[in-house]
Amino acid sequence: MVGVKVERLLINYKTLEDFKQFQAYGAQELSMLEDLQNEIVENDSKSPFYGIYYGNTLIARMSLYERSKLYDHYFNPPQDYLVLWKLEVLPDYRLRGYARMLVDYAKSFNLPIKTNPFIKANEFWEKMGFESASYNLERDLGENPYIWMPPGVKEAIQPPQQNTDDKKEKTKN
Amino acid sequence: MVGVKVERLLINYKTLEDFKQFQAYGAQELSMLEDLQNEIVENDSKSPFYGIYYGNTLIARMSLYERSKLYDHYFNPPQDYLVLWKLEVLPDYRLRGYARMLVDYAKSFNLPIKTNPFIKANEFWEKMGFESASYNLERDLGENPYIWMPPGVKEAIQPPQQNTDDKKEKTKN
Repeated sequence: MVGVKVERLLINYKTLEDFKQFQAYGAQELSMLEDLQNEIVENDSKSPFYGIYYGNTLIARMSLYERSKLYDHYFNPPQDYLVLWKLEVLPDYRLRGYARMLVDYAKSFNLPIKTNPFIKANEFWEKMGFESASYNLERDLGENPYIWMPPGVKEAIQPPQQNTDDKKEKTKN
Repeated sequence: MVGVKVERLLINYKTLEDFKQFQAYGAQELSMLEDLQNEIVENDSKSPFYGIYYGNTLIARMSLYERSKLYDHYFNPPQDYLVLWKLEVLPDYRLRGYARMLVDYAKSFNLPIKTNPFIKANEFWEKMGFESASYNLERDLGENPYIWMPPGVKEAIQPPQQNTDDKKEKTKN
């Protein structure tokens, strides 16, 4: 990994073009492009993406966002935490430790982290030291929440489950 | 479609076994299984899933949850709305209109609906009358939000974007 490092990506036309190589290209990237075109953000603004360049090629990236403890329902005590998504390495560069480099970078902020992996990726996240959070319907809906905690942080205690029948009555009215 | 209808699924061992046929089987289903095993929910409790049986086979399903208007950041005026996820038809039964039957059922509650499709499914959701919601980083993070609105409902106006540089400073501290 000599000469290869994780860096915060800047929003400019080159970055947004690089992003098209990634499978998870979607609403987020299109919104960044619009913001740049409409001058809502300046050229070379910092983005929520971090990436790894191999020479001039962006070969891996992830998005990272800090949520306030006011919205923390995952950790105990409630605290600021990072949400990580769109972790992806381009196919030709996989299995060389780049994904781990990005995850380690995210951990270096020393805040708890929450992500929502594809089910098929559970094993990868467990290797990264993440664990499956106790699923809570109201909080998680369609998610498969995985969390990582620095020392001293625990998973939040889940509120007692509401009887699903009660919830049901609310849905059809 | 004679004799085929959408029904609310009951949580029991047969349903939970049927769920294993679906690709999106994951944390939510495992949690339902645990709740049943630990008698936190009764056998045959109502679930957040709706499905279609073909004979004795569960061939399609979706999950539906009603969010209170207190948490509505998608619609104007703010109102109770449905979150739809895990819409899936088993491979052998695709392209016969079952997905549309489920979506039409969700619409029949006459509440706005929000979903988070895979990018590749955008076209399907547009055919279903959904539209891409304006992406908002803080609200949507890794999502690709699509919404459907009954008459009289509009999309929520987005707050002005924060400069990404400001946000940035918050992340690394």
